Amino acid sequence: MEHKFHNWLKNQIDTNERCDVLVGIGDDAAVLRANPNRDSMVVATDTIAEGTHFDLGLSSLELVGRKALGVNLSDLAAMGARPESAVLSFLLPKSFGLGEAQRIFQGIHELAKQFDVAVIGGDTNRWNGPLVVGATVLGSLPSGASGWPINGAMPGDAIVVSGEFGGSLKGRHLAFEPRIELASYLADNYVINAATDVSDSLSLDLKAMVSSAGMGVDLELTSIPISGDVDQGLDWSKRLKHALSDGEDFELILSVPGSELDCLFADESIGVKLSKIGVVTDQHTELRSPNQGNWSTITPQGYIH
Amino acid sequence: MEHKFHNWLKNQIDTNERCDVLVGIGDDAAVLRANPNRDSMVVATDTIAEGTHFDLGLSSLELVGRKALGVNLSDLAAMGARPESAVLSFLLPKSFGLGEAQRIFQGIHELAKQFDVAVIGGDTNRWNGPLVVGATVLGSLPSGASGWPINGAMPGDAIVVSGEFGGSLKGRHLAFEPRIELASYLADNYVINAATDVSDSLSLDLKAMVSSAGMGVDLELTSIPISGDVDQGLDWSKRLKHALSDGEDFELILSVPGSELDCLFADESIGVKLSKIGVVTDQHTELRSPNQGNWSTITPQGYIH
Repeated sequence: MEHKFHNWLKNQIDTNERCDVLVGIGDDAAVLRANPNRDSMVVATDTIAEGTHFDLGLSSLELVGRKALGVNLSDLAAMGARPESAVLSFLLPKSFGLGEAQRIFQGIHELAKQFDVAVIGGDTNRWNGPLVVGATVLGSLPSGASGWPINGAMPGDAIVVSGEFGGSLKGRHLAFEPRIELASYLADNYVINAATDVSDSLSLDLKAMVSSAGMGVDLELTSIPISGDVDQGLDWSKRLKHALSDGEDFELILSVPGSELDCLFADESIGVKLSKIGVVTDQHTELRSPNQGNWSTITPQGYIH
Repeated sequence: MEHKFHNWLKNQIDTNERCDVLVGIGDDAAVLRANPNRDSMVVATDTIAEGTHFDLGLSSLELVGRKALGVNLSDLAAMGARPESAVLSFLLPKSFGLGEAQRIFQGIHELAKQFDVAVIGGDTNRWNGPLVVGATVLGSLPSGASGWPINGAMPGDAIVVSGEFGGSLKGRHLAFEPRIELASYLADNYVINAATDVSDSLSLDLKAMVSSAGMGVDLELTSIPISGDVDQGLDWSKRLKHALSDGEDFELILSVPGSELDCLFADESIGVKLSKIGVVTDQHTELRSPNQGNWSTITPQGYIH
């Protein structure tokens, strides 16, 4: 089965061959031509597993494949990088045949083509365990850039987020749109001091980002964009809690110098909703919000994989 | 536990920081400085899983880690490439604590240091499944080289193998020495038309290599080096069968132009045993051996993961 799958894969991928791929899928390793104009390379790796990151009773095999690549693309977006190529890793349950393997790959390939990511290699094994799909994605930064560090937040920076939060389990955690286009555009046009993407939860990932810089955040809770996927029948504070703690939104959290904000929020080239949800401070190392003249501390909660 | 493990990892790795690693472990993605003198990049990925590639009753966690990196280094060796950096992926059983995760990493790190491979990123998840350890390794080729293709065997080439075969389950499948030094030296000094490494078995991987070029091999069975790990009490033909079919030897199979052989076998800089075991032919597409004036076909057998 593995050999049939690999032969099929080679045919799938030859059709959109790229001239920087000197040796693609089917050899012991892939060989890429180096781009002499590029001064750095970005690498992310992420693996998703049945029962932890997806449930085969609730998601199609195509969406599992899509998510396996998507979480990696989201990591690259969180560095301000553009993806270029990917290698894949499959651990397939013994009950899977060629058809199941193909459906997983089709989900990967559709997303890969959308962002011009060349699938250049892979490793397939069958085993007596649940489905596991991993990917490693290689990408590039604008010339001279060194990526958006997780620990670069500065006092006074605005915390700006893309999209909306909460309720991703309804389906968005599988079918989300990685923020590649937004990240590339921002990396080319704006100063971003720090960034990360939301996998564990908005509160956990924001806290991790600012903590790594020794900073805290004064949050404007009413500015946090709550997804329509959160049960509309709940009152606002319960919906807010979902937005802060549900996780797997795969939106960007950006720490943006105040001087960039006017242009950023007036920029009509940005096709993604951006919201300013707080300000970075060096006066504490918590997530806090104003509460009747005092400050309340928000305890980060979420899903740690 | 994952956060403790990541914090511990960062400290382990800071100690042998390399100046081409601009952003290492602990961010959303790693950033490497591109080397302007390099015209290509090599990428391999391989994942090993409990019950399929190792048995925790028979192997230490350090050796599991070592094997996870080693199989990837072996893939790079099979391209004539030198490894430079690696990203890791861990799916840890829920029963594992920090100590177990650390022991796996220590096995990886020891082998990484031996070959000057920088561990630049990783992904750790705990789950209700068996232990899975994956790695993706990036490396480089000599300037102007495009790697040793699997499908480059030419009629008249000698099939040359490194090391010895058979009985790797006694321990060599975990603790093998990836043939990085040999491959780098050969890539710098000799013409190699095709290469692969032995994971499924000598017969299966040799057959796959020559088949991809539409060729066959006339084997000299008495020249096949049989490992001392194969039961010495067996007669020669049974020991030979182990050498041809046991798998996971992680030795190199090279297709070498005849004009290179005299120098290759006289080269005292090569510290690894090399054996010529056959000749590539375009007269058939099998593995054959002379048998009392006729030819016998050898049916490839082995372990397909």
